[in-house]
Formats: sequence, C-alpha cells, structure tokens
Amino acid sequence: MARLALDVMGGDHAPAAPIAAALLAVQELGSEHVIQLVGREAVIREQLDDQLRGAAPLVREAAARFEVVDAPDVIEMTDKPSVAIRGKPNSSMSLGIRLQAEGRSDAFISAGNTGAQMAASTFILKLHEGLSRPAIGTVFPTARQPVVVLDSGANVDCSAAELVQFARLGHVYARDILGRANPAVGLLSIGEEPEKGNAAVKEAHQLLLGAGLHFIGNIEGRDVPVGACDRGPVDVVVCDGFTGNVLLKFYESVGPMLFGMMMKNGVTKEQIGAIVHALDYAKYGGAPLLGVRGVSIICHGKSSPEAIKNGLLAGLRAVETRMSHHIGEQLAK
Amino acid sequence: MARLALDVMGGDHAPAAPIAAALLAVQELGSEHVIQLVGREAVIREQLDDQLRGAAPLVREAAARFEVVDAPDVIEMTDKPSVAIRGKPNSSMSLGIRLQAEGRSDAFISAGNTGAQMAASTFILKLHEGLSRPAIGTVFPTARQPVVVLDSGANVDCSAAELVQFARLGHVYARDILGRANPAVGLLSIGEEPEKGNAAVKEAHQLLLGAGLHFIGNIEGRDVPVGACDRGPVDVVVCDGFTGNVLLKFYESVGPMLFGMMMKNGVTKEQIGAIVHALDYAKYGGAPLLGVRGVSIICHGKSSPEAIKNGLLAGLRAVETRMSHHIGEQLAK
Repeated sequence: MARLALDVMGGDHAPAAPIAAALLAVQELGSEHVIQLVGREAVIREQLDDQLRGAAPLVREAAARFEVVDAPDVIEMTDKPSVAIRGKPNSSMSLGIRLQAEGRSDAFISAGNTGAQMAASTFILKLHEGLSRPAIGTVFPTARQPVVVLDSGANVDCSAAELVQFARLGHVYARDILGRANPAVGLLSIGEEPEKGNAAVKEAHQLLLGAGLHFIGNIEGRDVPVGACDRGPVDVVVCDGFTGNVLLKFYESVGPMLFGMMMKNGVTKEQIGAIVHALDYAKYGGAPLLGVRGVSIICHGKSSPEAIKNGLLAGLRAVETRMSHHIGEQLAK
Repeated sequence: MARLALDVMGGDHAPAAPIAAALLAVQELGSEHVIQLVGREAVIREQLDDQLRGAAPLVREAAARFEVVDAPDVIEMTDKPSVAIRGKPNSSMSLGIRLQAEGRSDAFISAGNTGAQMAASTFILKLHEGLSRPAIGTVFPTARQPVVVLDSGANVDCSAAELVQFARLGHVYARDILGRANPAVGLLSIGEEPEKGNAAVKEAHQLLLGAGLHFIGNIEGRDVPVGACDRGPVDVVVCDGFTGNVLLKFYESVGPMLFGMMMKNGVTKEQIGAIVHALDYAKYGGAPLLGVRGVSIICHGKSSPEAIKNGLLAGLRAVETRMSHHIGEQLAK
C-alpha cells in the first residue's frame, strides 16, 4: 500500500483541480492505497462537498477513504522559495513533505510553486549521497516511445559531474517509471562526435563512457522528437537545466502553433485530435524531483485534474518500484 | 551592382545544386548583378552544359553572364577547418572568399563545410572591431513574422559580453535583411524575470538594458514559435550557440514528426502543404556569418537549388543594405 500526499492548495486551479484529481485517482487506485489531502481543512471539506454533490455512490464511498491533513499556511505562486519554506512551516507544501520524513506518507504531489517544492523537498527529505542538487526529469512525447529529458529546469549552470548525475537519475527513472529494461542514455549536444559541445558536455561525454550506463553517445536536437538517433532508440536525454527548460517550453508551444496553422488550412479538430492527445503532457502527469530521499512529484501550475491525477499515479509508481532506493544504489556505484 | 561568388563545389548535392541555383537566381536578378561560379573550371563547364541542354533561350543568355573562377582544390565535408584552410589555399572556399578581400567580389555563398567557411571567412575577411568571434544568425519561421536566432552554432561557450554582441549583430540583421524598423531583441532564458537564467544570461540581461537597443527583456522557449512574448512581437532571439543549435535542429525535426503523425491520421498532403511551405527553411536561404568584414552566407549542406538560390538573394540583400558596414557602426557604439 502507498500513502500519497496531495497538495490541495497548489496550482493555478487550486483547490478545485487537486480535489477533482483526487476523485479521479481514487476510482483507479486499489483500495489499499490512501490519498492524503493536505491543505486548509475547511477549504478541503467545502470543495469536497461541492464536488461530491450528485456524485455516484461509488465515488462517494471511495472519497470516504481520503485522509485530510490540515495545513493552515498557504504558499503563493509568487512567494520566494526560501521565504516560503522558512516563513510558512505549516503550509501544505512543507507539511505534506514532512509527512514523508516522519514516515507517515510515501509520496508528495503538488502543482504549486515549483521553486518552493524543490527547496522544501531538498531541505526536508535531503539528497542521496553523492548528489549536489536534485534534477527535474520531464517526459517528452516522441514519434516513438516517450523519452525523459533531464535536467529540465532545476539546475541552470551544470558541471560535467552534474550531467553524469543526471544520466544516473535518468537511467533509474526510465527503468522504474517508463519500464525500459536497459535505458539508452544520450547526451544532448550539437554534433555526434565526442569533441562536439560546450566544455561541460565534452567532459561529461568522456565521464559517461566509464559510468557503467548504456551510454549511446551524443545526440542532437533533431533526435529528440524522433525518440531515436542513428544508433537506435533513446530513452534518456541528458542536458543542463537551461537547455532542457528552453526545449521543454519550446516543445509545449510549437504543437499548438502548428495545429493553429493547420486548422486555418482546413484540417479538422477531429483529424488532429489523436495527435494532440499523443502530445498531451497531461498524460504524463508530473515530473519527479529526482535525487531526494523520497518521492516529490512536480506538476505544472496549469495542470488539469487529469494531469494531477497522473501525477498521483506517477507518485504511486515511484513508490511501488522503490525508485528513490534505486537512485541511492545507482549513485553509490 | 553586386558580384556574388557562389561555391560550386560545396554541399551534399554539389556541383549540380549550386549550378541549378545559379540558373534560378540569374533569372530573378537584374542584369547588372554578376554571379561568380567558383570551383573546378572543367566541372563547372560540364555541369553548366548539362543543365543548359534544352533550356529556354533566355536562360542560356542569362547564363552567359556567369563568371567562372577556377579553384583547383576542393574542401571535403569531413575536412578539419584549419587543415582545409591551410592545406587547400586554392579551394573554392578560400578563393571565393579571397575575391572579396581583394575587392573583386561582394559576397560569398556556400553550402559546403560550415566550419571551414567560418574559419576562412574569419581569417581572410577579418572581424569587425570589438568582436571576439562571428555568429550565425538563423531565421526561424513562427506563427507571426520570422525571427532571427543567434548564435545558432558558431559559439558554444558564451560570455555575457558575447551575448550582447549577438544582440547587436541580430539588431542589424533584423533591420537590414528582415526589414524591421526597430527590431525587438529578446534574451532567451528560463523565465521572464531578470534574475532567471544561467550566469552569462543574467549578466547579459543587465548589460543589454544599457546597450541602446530595443531590448524587450527575457523571453522563454515557448515564445519562439509564437514570434512574440507577453510584451509584444520579437524580432531577434539572443542565445549561446549551444542552446541555439539544439533548438534549431529540434525545430527542423519536430515539424516532419508531427506531419508524419498527421498523415497516419488521414490528413492529406494537400492540407499540410501550405504549412510545410510556411515552415520551409529553404525559403530563408542561407544564414549569414555575422561579424566578418564582408558577406559570407552559410547554406545547409543538404540545400536544394531553391535554398541556395535564396542564399544568393540573401547575399545580394546584405550587399545592397550594406549590412556589414552597419554592423561595424553598431559595434562601435
């Protein structure tokens, strides 16, 4: 069984979206699992009552299994991470994560202030030995299988050693969460040759050759949407958080731009529906903050209930596969 | 009048594609302009004869205005830049660029070895005062007007001062080549706020505030395909060459991936035709190597005759607008 703590106060559409997500998730999860709703108790009760009005009896029964954890403080999207953590110790963010540190929960899922979640997760859960900072792994849909891109925003200036850490984190993520037996790790660069790239990438290439991973060498920007390079499929794309974040946001934006152009051109909504669905980030739920001793799933602030629900399922999968434990083992190698 | 030197030996489809490009261009250019075909004379004559067989009399007449410049050496795509330049002084690349240094030509256009072209252009033409390295400006199609992204591959590790140089180069390019009256310059980062970004970007943001350009602040990956950010349209996207190159190659690849998915989904070739055309990099021809004292247009190795023809037209426009002169003035500010 897993206990999944959900931040009810976090995200652009809180508390409605997290509560709706919990109601979706509880219908999919086995009854041995517990969803812990963390936030202002009065707000949670009111929102739950609202959403349960007229709900099917089965949903109402499932919702009775929710645990409510009162957290009087609320971290705003605009709060500075350090201030939020120090100044609001009883926020849904801090409290929700602290449950794990105290052995009362197994995973934390939030669509709230990302910086605050990173800071609180790192501060409260601590990092695995051998890590300097956690990384965010984001799943990119491709023409083939989805790939995990990391870091996608937590670390902007990265050393070669940090890029190798991302490779290790991505290896475990691809195996445990994406189910790849022997994940192919590619290093994002500007040419296939080992001597292509910036200084950190060139050094990381050499280090990765001896890292005991299935390292397939440098890959290029063009290989990412394909999910493969000349040497075969790719499962993990390693890059610094600046490049990863620029690429992620570019990718999120280029699809809608192209679909808009197409619909002006007579392509129907039905025709692009399946593609939009295939590219839908909501499907992949949140991005785990990799490297912390525990499970902390970061969802986009704009997350729909469906996206947050998938964040909960990602959290469950991380718990069940013991991802954090495997990361500790991998980093000790 | 402008004299445009075309590298007939450069590119994956040389010499056929450059010769075909010259034949397309000569029909569009006013008869006061001269196209200089640089390469092995025998190869050029043979290819010209082949392509002119059965051509319309007007084309044959126009082709009579070509100048042929014999260049016995050939730089291969796999040659190291430095070796190519030093070991093959009479290649079409070196000779074609040297024509400009000697006052016998106004622009050089090549689809050949990019590294060699950069090295030869920098070595033979020299850089404008105040520049440490040249930059490659690539035009990205967007939902609005095209934007120029630079650097897109010439400089992988960039200082803040270099990013500011790119902003100046991009400003002149957007004005002279894209025809923007007061180009809006955006700094690519991972958040709008001035304090977001890697170390070089954060410092560059501060420097750009006082650079006398129409600096609109940080933009994000999502703004690039839109061609605009919250504060309005964008004309110039400033980034280091690592990020720019990854983004460029990603962009080139994501369109075909989506179109492939769509066609599996019943969207017809006709329906996506106009969009593929709108995204077609060939339309934008080559990317000028910005910062050299002269005009050196870099075309993609895979360039079609149409793309190389557009490279010739881009070269003409750079000559006619005195882009290089304006870059010198801008850098002196």
